[in-house]
Amino acid sequence: MRVAGTPHRTIALARDGWSVEVIDQTALPHRFELIRLTSSAEAARAIRDMVVRGAPLIGATAAYGMALALRDDPTDRCLYAAARALVATRPTAVNLGRAVRAMLDHLRAVSPRQRVAAAYARAGALCEEDVAANRALGGHGLAILRGLAERNGGGPVNVLTHCNAGWLATVDWGTALAPVYLAAREGVPVHVWVTETRPRNQGALTAWELSHEGVPHTFTVDNAAGHLMRLGKVDVVLVGTDRTTAAGDVCNKIGTYLLAAAARDNHLPFYAAVPGPSIDWETDDSAAIPIEERQAREVTHVAGLDGDERAATVRVAPDGTPIANFGFDITPARLVTGLITERGVAGASREGLRGLYPDGA
Amino acid sequence: MRVAGTPHRTIALARDGWSVEVIDQTALPHRFELIRLTSSAEAARAIRDMVVRGAPLIGATAAYGMALALRDDPTDRCLYAAARALVATRPTAVNLGRAVRAMLDHLRAVSPRQRVAAAYARAGALCEEDVAANRALGGHGLAILRGLAERNGGGPVNVLTHCNAGWLATVDWGTALAPVYLAAREGVPVHVWVTETRPRNQGALTAWELSHEGVPHTFTVDNAAGHLMRLGKVDVVLVGTDRTTAAGDVCNKIGTYLLAAAARDNHLPFYAAVPGPSIDWETDDSAAIPIEERQAREVTHVAGLDGDERAATVRVAPDGTPIANFGFDITPARLVTGLITERGVAGASREGLRGLYPDGA
Repeated sequence: MRVAGTPHRTIALARDGWSVEVIDQTALPHRFELIRLTSSAEAARAIRDMVVRGAPLIGATAAYGMALALRDDPTDRCLYAAARALVATRPTAVNLGRAVRAMLDHLRAVSPRQRVAAAYARAGALCEEDVAANRALGGHGLAILRGLAERNGGGPVNVLTHCNAGWLATVDWGTALAPVYLAAREGVPVHVWVTETRPRNQGALTAWELSHEGVPHTFTVDNAAGHLMRLGKVDVVLVGTDRTTAAGDVCNKIGTYLLAAAARDNHLPFYAAVPGPSIDWETDDSAAIPIEERQAREVTHVAGLDGDERAATVRVAPDGTPIANFGFDITPARLVTGLITERGVAGASREGLRGLYPDGA
Repeated sequence: MRVAGTPHRTIALARDGWSVEVIDQTALPHRFELIRLTSSAEAARAIRDMVVRGAPLIGATAAYGMALALRDDPTDRCLYAAARALVATRPTAVNLGRAVRAMLDHLRAVSPRQRVAAAYARAGALCEEDVAANRALGGHGLAILRGLAERNGGGPVNVLTHCNAGWLATVDWGTALAPVYLAAREGVPVHVWVTETRPRNQGALTAWELSHEGVPHTFTVDNAAGHLMRLGKVDVVLVGTDRTTAAGDVCNKIGTYLLAAAARDNHLPFYAAVPGPSIDWETDDSAAIPIEERQAREVTHVAGLDGDERAATVRVAPDGTPIANFGFDITPARLVTGLITERGVAGASREGLRGLYPDGA
């Protein structure tokens, strides 16, 4: 998607042909900066510190992290050590483990001498698959937005989204925002309500993305979502996912479940954009998903720009207050209108998902 | 309630016997500072700038604002001008208009020569009435918490509250927190989940209050509330109100409705603490309540302490992002388990409220 008019991806090989360039998402929305990853450890750190974030992009970064590891040492020992280290960076998203496994499956059959080239090729292919899948997913979501626009007599469709499931969370296009970008390009009028998404305020990334693509949007605190629904200012809730169970329960950024409960109370459709790689075929019971608990400082401190436009952090909670900081929550399938995948829109159920993915895991 | 072991109220006559001392709530939770109000204009500014906040405390401050106005000029002209100016400071809470009206009704029958003394006396009485009502309300809420503690086999009752409906929002005791303070004093085990309450983070005030009273609590982002409910970590949601309609719809801090929708989805009780003066007997239709829309800066900028413990503000949203900032939302009566008043617990309906307040408006 575009940044100041220029098309970008979130991750790409640098001009040197081996190091990996990513957008530093901790600097956004205030500064647009690229960071070069030159080792597997740097890739792991970028994932852990959320320099890169979003389930699909984490997977892509881990894949390139494997390639960087093999560049230093193409042996089996290094291959498996890198895989372990990368998988351990973040626990909730399923794409991460899947991307690393795909790399492992591919590379263990390749002789160490050819592994580096094979790893770069496979990582690049995973990125292209992500772009193609998101574009396809966007097309299926676009049909939903088109239908809502017709129901509104051609008036704008008000989409409410949470966190950032835009192109910054993927290699390109995004998941929940892919239908929105397609709608904007095809002339379907759309307006996006962007929730701030405390504690890490990834809504600011969404607002930044939308403004660079010229999509009308309004930014609010998370608390406003229910009021907007009650006022009739929301037509559809559209979010991403970090992991969706085989039964259709959607694990996504903390706060998503509140939106789903309110959408149900207002008889509004609630869709999750679910690329195939984020489906956890091995888990039926969402209670088995490890919900990441992150450090208290994310809650007690807020980062932004000070009056001189310099990066700064302020403490907002009383000193020493006990904190709980869950990164994700579960929206049960019964509250989900549909799962938008690259293969079509599935019902939020085992049967619905199996209908589109008979091959499954 | 206690601050560092010393009992305090949020508003009181200063030692000079005429100026009014309030706690500067914009400095909390980081600094505890008193501000002297010496004119009606200063009282109005304190309300508008949220130096004082919370529906009951706003009413008390406006009452003293009338007294300060008459001190400068006890004529009818000044009486009515001060009333108009004070009522115009904030639109949503009903206590404000009610306190000013109570003062007007009382003072217009008093000769200008005696008005100053009468105004101070009436304002003081309104404050005492608030304290007594909150204490009584707390007793009725305590019975609910006691019942939940018994159901938990004597284990702690997990209360989730939003914003600050504690003693800082009133003259003393608080509304939603009055039952909690009574429970703590009477040995009923209680733990409070405190939501941050963006955009103004009044949850920090609640955490500050609870810590000074020694009540166990945990602070979270607003987004976490639904997840906590789903985990079984919440027994009851207990919030305040700025205005409750005659039909039992609860207008409260933005985000309250999301909590109510999630509570319903989890079959959890949702109570609002509703002192009589916050009931709007003239309004059946909650859509008629003016919902305050506040400045964008409350959303785009976050205030706190910098690394040197100095007050600082950071911008969190991209520059120029369009913002919506509604201060309140409506929780429909159908989602409310009960309204805890100083006269008992009413069903959230016209009949329920009339049962306790046959005299009504």
